[in-house]
Amino acid sequence: MNQATVPRWSITELLEGCARAGYGGAGLWRHRLEGADLPQLANLAASAGVQISSLCRGGFFLVNEPGRTAERAADNRRAVDEACALGATALVLVCGPAPDRDLAAARRAVADAITELAAYAGTVGMPLAIEPMHPLYCADRSVVVTLDQALSMAKTAAGASGSVVGVMLDSYHLWWDPVLEASIAKAAGRILGLQLADWVVPLSDPLNGRGMPGDGSVDFRSFRRVVEQAGYAGLAEVEIFNPVIWEQNPVEVLEVAAARYKEHVARLA
Amino acid sequence: MNQATVPRWSITELLEGCARAGYGGAGLWRHRLEGADLPQLANLAASAGVQISSLCRGGFFLVNEPGRTAERAADNRRAVDEACALGATALVLVCGPAPDRDLAAARRAVADAITELAAYAGTVGMPLAIEPMHPLYCADRSVVVTLDQALSMAKTAAGASGSVVGVMLDSYHLWWDPVLEASIAKAAGRILGLQLADWVVPLSDPLNGRGMPGDGSVDFRSFRRVVEQAGYAGLAEVEIFNPVIWEQNPVEVLEVAAARYKEHVARLA
Repeated sequence: MNQATVPRWSITELLEGCARAGYGGAGLWRHRLEGADLPQLANLAASAGVQISSLCRGGFFLVNEPGRTAERAADNRRAVDEACALGATALVLVCGPAPDRDLAAARRAVADAITELAAYAGTVGMPLAIEPMHPLYCADRSVVVTLDQALSMAKTAAGASGSVVGVMLDSYHLWWDPVLEASIAKAAGRILGLQLADWVVPLSDPLNGRGMPGDGSVDFRSFRRVVEQAGYAGLAEVEIFNPVIWEQNPVEVLEVAAARYKEHVARLA
Repeated sequence: MNQATVPRWSITELLEGCARAGYGGAGLWRHRLEGADLPQLANLAASAGVQISSLCRGGFFLVNEPGRTAERAADNRRAVDEACALGATALVLVCGPAPDRDLAAARRAVADAITELAAYAGTVGMPLAIEPMHPLYCADRSVVVTLDQALSMAKTAAGASGSVVGVMLDSYHLWWDPVLEASIAKAAGRILGLQLADWVVPLSDPLNGRGMPGDGSVDFRSFRRVVEQAGYAGLAEVEIFNPVIWEQNPVEVLEVAAARYKEHVARLA
């Protein structure tokens, strides 16, 4: 379960709630870590049998103001350290909007920044997961919008740094891609995480209109099958930005998500 | 100028308004043709020196109800006939949402339907322009979401039918694509039209939040240059779905669009 689906819970509540509901992992967000004792959280997760499946997010490399680049790089190294302290599977990178209209230049700068961060992440053994985001967010969140593009950057950064750089696959961001199946096959060995949310029409909100699996257009069973065929055997996070779900009792949200997983995502018996 | 930008005008007003403002063409919409004398409109356009640069839209091939497929095919042949009667450069195809969660099957069905329609369009000499739409619309408008995908379908349909099948390039739908430049180069000889609208953030409305060139994130000058390098020397339509612009005086909208074209799109002197 990703923390963004049940923001009413503190991290401690999330870890305990996941354990009670039989979830094997929890995805966390940096802005909720403020002041937390990370080794203590890591111990709590370990004793609860809950893997920290991801930490969101590093990235947002591109800034308009001169001098901010170094500041962003330092913050990204802190994100790597936090992911390490938590024992997270990977640090998720959201690859920022372009500072101007030159998308190609922004993409080159992102690739360079990932390579630089990967060199640091490698020294502390933290895998980086580039998250391609839906082209809907190309202007304001991420210039990395397809899995092919993310894979190409991951390979370059891994090759140049010798570190582990892979991808985070989110159904909401990827489901529309006509070459998705082939791209996922190419991602074999680089899939560091899986996130699930459905695309619901009409789109109530570009950011927070995501749905529980089964509420929308995504064929989750095929998505999971292709990801498994590429050799991924890790956890799947349910990550849903939706104010209707945020208002619900988190215990019930975990129950519904588990039921939806069984109905729409899991391998048929 | 595309009719969707200035819906307050009738087609006659649009053709006369374009002529007065020095526009070389006008893009029309089928739902505004109801009851019109098409040969008379074609004559008016010709005598005003205004080319009908496109007719929107055929397509929406996929329907959930059995029996509706033949009805859609017949309506698409009528769309071809209307485009012919108007002397339009091309009939634009919007390639419909999937009737269920099987995107791959929907895409195969669309490709087959285009090939079938192309066979008819060839007999009357009307080029078909497949319009790839932004992945934002994959669930409710078009399963064709990238230029590469549209080109592949266009080649197949052209090869199978011997008819002219190409693509409509709309900046709003395509600007995010990491392989856009290479795809446009591959589209050489198949570009049947060009439409311009800007991507403005925050997105006020998924359908009607488009902006005048210069208001958003699109690098129009690069887009036009790459399209010209691919050999396209036809018209560019300004097609903007935006209720704020719809409320403005159409004469002024044409003035602003021409000024924006000069400032943000046209070749630098």
